[in-house]
This record gives sequence, C-alpha cells and structure tokens, in this order.
Amino acid sequence: MEIRHPYLLFLGDAPDQLSAKTAQGVAQWRPDWCLGQLRLPGCQADLGLKDMTLDEAVAAGARTLVVGVANRGGVIAESWIGALERALALGLDLASGLHSKLADVPGLAAGATSNGARLFDVRHPSERFPVANGAKRPGKRLLTVGTDCAVGKMFAALALEKEMQARGMKADFRATGQTGILIAGNGVSVDAVVADFISGATEWLTPANDDDHWDVVEGQGSLFHASFAGVSMGLIHGSQPDALVLCHEPTRSHMRGLPDYPLPSLEACLEANLAAARLTNPAVVSVGIAVNTSRMAPGDAAAYLAETGARLGLPAVDPVRDGVAPIVDRL
Amino acid sequence: MEIRHPYLLFLGDAPDQLSAKTAQGVAQWRPDWCLGQLRLPGCQADLGLKDMTLDEAVAAGARTLVVGVANRGGVIAESWIGALERALALGLDLASGLHSKLADVPGLAAGATSNGARLFDVRHPSERFPVANGAKRPGKRLLTVGTDCAVGKMFAALALEKEMQARGMKADFRATGQTGILIAGNGVSVDAVVADFISGATEWLTPANDDDHWDVVEGQGSLFHASFAGVSMGLIHGSQPDALVLCHEPTRSHMRGLPDYPLPSLEACLEANLAAARLTNPAVVSVGIAVNTSRMAPGDAAAYLAETGARLGLPAVDPVRDGVAPIVDRL
Repeated sequence: MEIRHPYLLFLGDAPDQLSAKTAQGVAQWRPDWCLGQLRLPGCQADLGLKDMTLDEAVAAGARTLVVGVANRGGVIAESWIGALERALALGLDLASGLHSKLADVPGLAAGATSNGARLFDVRHPSERFPVANGAKRPGKRLLTVGTDCAVGKMFAALALEKEMQARGMKADFRATGQTGILIAGNGVSVDAVVADFISGATEWLTPANDDDHWDVVEGQGSLFHASFAGVSMGLIHGSQPDALVLCHEPTRSHMRGLPDYPLPSLEACLEANLAAARLTNPAVVSVGIAVNTSRMAPGDAAAYLAETGARLGLPAVDPVRDGVAPIVDRL
Repeated sequence: MEIRHPYLLFLGDAPDQLSAKTAQGVAQWRPDWCLGQLRLPGCQADLGLKDMTLDEAVAAGARTLVVGVANRGGVIAESWIGALERALALGLDLASGLHSKLADVPGLAAGATSNGARLFDVRHPSERFPVANGAKRPGKRLLTVGTDCAVGKMFAALALEKEMQARGMKADFRATGQTGILIAGNGVSVDAVVADFISGATEWLTPANDDDHWDVVEGQGSLFHASFAGVSMGLIHGSQPDALVLCHEPTRSHMRGLPDYPLPSLEACLEANLAAARLTNPAVVSVGIAVNTSRMAPGDAAAYLAETGARLGLPAVDPVRDGVAPIVDRL
C-alpha cells in the first residue's frame, strides 16, 4: 500500500479552516507532493495552494485526490460524490482518512473498478498482520509518547524526521494515524487494528533496517488515558524504541474526553513509558520533551520549557516555536 | 447476545482429547447445561457425557449445539457440515469458538436464516462498543491477571465464581475469550475487538451493578507478553478492578511463543498490574496468587505455594488442587 503522489487536496465544502486540518497537515509536511487544492462552492477553507480543477491537476501529473476534509460524523458528503467519481474517471486514485469508507459508496467502488483506480481508506487497515514476535531487529527507532491524546505526537515525529534528514541522517517517519498516513503515503492506523495485532502491526510498520537508520514512529494515545492505553502499550512493545520523546500540553486541565482524570506528571509518565518499553528494548532511553505551548504566552512558554528541561535533565522544546534540534543532538 | 442452553456438545471427529478441550471446559463448569455429546465416526475424544443424536437432544430440550472441538487451523471441517446443517433444521442454534466463522459457511448461513436459528461465532464480536469513558460505576470487580498467556486465568476466575456463589455471594463470571463465552453463555472476545475499543468493550461487559455484586473477570494475555500486552492493559483499565488475582505457571522457562523472553517475577508483575489498575481504580488491591502446579510433584507444589504466599503476603493456591477459598476469604 503506497499512496501515489503528487496529490490534489480535496477540501470539499469545508465550513471552516479547522475542518480541513488533515489537508493542512499534508500541505505543511509534504509541500512538494501537493500540486493544488480543489474547493467546491461554499468552501470556507484555504490552504494557500493553487486552486485547480480535476482536469488541470491531471494535466499537471496528479496521481491521487486526497480527501483532506472532515465533516461532523466523518461521513462522505453527497455533495462531494460527483467530484470524486469524476476524479476516478480521470484515472486518479482516491485517499481518505474519514471513518466512512470510500469503498462503501457504490458509485466510487464501481468507478474504481472500471477505471483501474485504487481507493485508500487509510483509517481502515486492509492488510493482515502477524502476531508480534518480539524479536530484536536491526535499525534504530524513536517513538513519540504522550501524557494525553492530541498533544502533538505526530507533529513532533514529523519535526524530528525533518531535522534528522536535514542533517543527513537516515530517518523515516512511520505513520500510525490517518493524517500521518496521508503525509507519509503509507502506514497503519493502529487504533483500528484488531487488538491481538497491535504490536504485530507495529513490528510490520517498523521492519529491520540499516543499523544507522531511524524509524521515527508516531505515537498514539497515552498509557494514562483510560480509553486508549492498550493501543499505546502495543505500539510501545511493537516499535521496540531505542529512544522516547515525551509530548505534553501544559494547559490541559484533564485528560481529553475524561473530565475526572487529571494529567499525569511528566516524571510518572516518562517512567511508565520507559518501564513498558524496556520489555522489548532494555536499552531504551528518553531523549527529550516536546511541549505544545501554543496556548501559553511566549514568556510563560520559555520559562516552562527551561524549568521542565532542568527538572528532567532533558531538552524540552516546543517543536513549532523552537524546532527539535536539541533533541536530535542527543541521538 | 445470550447463547441459550441446554447445550449438546459437538465433538466432531476430534483426533484426541486435547482437541476437545473447549467442550471439556463447558462440561466441567456448566454440567447442568450439558445434556450430552455428539460424536462423529472416528472421534477420539470423550467427555463422559451421554452420547446423543441430534433428534434425541432436541427431544430432551437442547437449544444450542456447541462446536467444542478445534481442528488445526481452527477451521470448520467438511465432515461436520452435514450434522451442523441438520442441527439448524431441527431448530437448534449453533455456537462456535473457532477462528473460521459458521456464518461464512453458505449452507449454515442459509440454514440459520430459513430455520430462524442463530449462529454464534463467539471469537468474532458482533456488537459495536463505545469508547471507554472511565467513569466509576457501582458494583465490585475482580480481575485475574497473569505472568504469561495460558497460565489459568479463566480457570481461576471460574473457580472464584463457584466458591463465591457457594458462599451466597453475588458473583458472575465475565468471559473475555471463546471458551469462557461458551461457558458463560455470553461475553466478549476482547482480543478480537478493534484496538480503540478494548477498554470500552470491557466496560460494556462489566456494567454498573449492586454494591455487593462481584464481576469476576477473565483476564487475557499479560502486561509482560510482547505480543498481547495491549489487550491486557485495556482489560485492566476497562474492568476497573477492586481486586486482582495473579495467575502463574512456575515451570515455564520463557513467555509463551517468545523463546527470548523470560517470565517476570511475581513481584514485578503484581506491581505493574496494580500500577496500571490504579489509573481507573486507585483503591485496587491484590488478593491472591493462583498457581497452576500441574507440572510439579505434589510435595514441590506445596512447598512452592507456601514459600510464595509467605514471600508476597498473600494466599497462594492451586485452584485445581486446593480450591480458592483462602482468596475468597480476603474479599
């Protein structure tokens, strides 16, 4: 499964910028892959890319139309289907990170078949994965873990990949969620895998590699999230991380979606993740803290990062504001 | 989903006793539900139940034919299908814990439809589960956890239910694997649930109840098993256990299926399980150690149990040899 690029990013009739955040992530991290954007009448989102028709995009070499917009409910809107069918007729593949499947829309399934095009429903793994075998394999791996869900684990991993590649290191982002998969062009939505195969899917995603190659693995959930910790645990064991980066959002008053659950301390969270990771890689170490300070005043953010870094004895950075160079220095 | 009893246990053409161990578990723990056994020519297994034809079983009130035999590969053998189709024609439901689904055999799917019978593929959850909400709910819960897979977690839970019920306590075994489900008549194969819903399925399985009611929850896997720890973690969080019983098999030289992984110490395993369980129930305590000593000489087993119990300050028993009364005394 490799989603072909270049992409045309489909924004549909997005009611606001936020609903196009998947497309925004793709445009931000893979600008070279994005030829333009396709917006339907009424679309309120704009990625600052060239507006293109399907025909223009195909003429420019586009290979895949990426549905980078989310409705409430994650469904494929009636109003999109005409454009999606026409994309297939023009020979484009379709890729989507929505809960609803492209393949479940009869017109799209038929259009893909008759045009030899592919439908990528990246939230729904189609591979069959083995049970994890826990065997040590060559290559190095870094995993981003979090105090909570949605604290910047994907962003941190992508920032690390970019910094490592800029230094000439061998590094590949390994995507475990839908936006990450559209950015990487491949990956596994590990939270959608059958529970027995979480670690096995992660081993599959991060196979043996050169001794000096780094897989930079996108973490999911949190060991301290009462809904999703099983996913986090399986990811930790399957990725056999050599290095952990702990991601955090300091202004959050409780765990996402769980008003009665406070966030863990950074110390407790790091220790729990290291303890879990030691099962499959006793040599694991923590190499940094990635903090999302977007809701803090710049002065407060700087003070928080300085205090946190000193307290934990690790580089503490905001990947957005500061980049991740001090963390990569530790690898 | 409630599998109706009484059962007729289908042993097919089992090549040996071990391949009928699912049926054996059902016969052992639910003798009142089992009217008899149905064996095909060549069957080498025998549960000591009355041999019955389908017609005899129906006349005696049977409601479900339970496929309690496993082939290599977990498939439904050609040679069974005639009997299974006839069972449906006589109005019986079918239940199976095999990997292959009854519902995927065209003749059985059609037979169920035309006879208004139900097919229970208990290894394949058919419900849609919510994401776990972590909210505290009334009722008490005990979870069996393990140093490894297949160390007696189901057996210990069933022995605890039996002892508790014998004392007049309100207690219900909650099944999380295929054999357990056939024994309980309901449950969820949590390792077959989509990863995001492990904890949610467990919450669903162990709902609010009377303050003095115990759910005795069958554990799965082990936090120290590199293939399946995510399942164990989700089960721990979703069941919000008040009490943990740690299950162990002392003669095992490595984790099941993982030759390079030693077993954890009982102390480390208990502490890791308690730490995980505290997230959703800070008041969790350990109440006992259940040891499978079947491969030890009686004298060695007794010495091991005495030493282990003294070292950990907990009752240590072999549920098969000794029962679990000392553990129930602690509840």
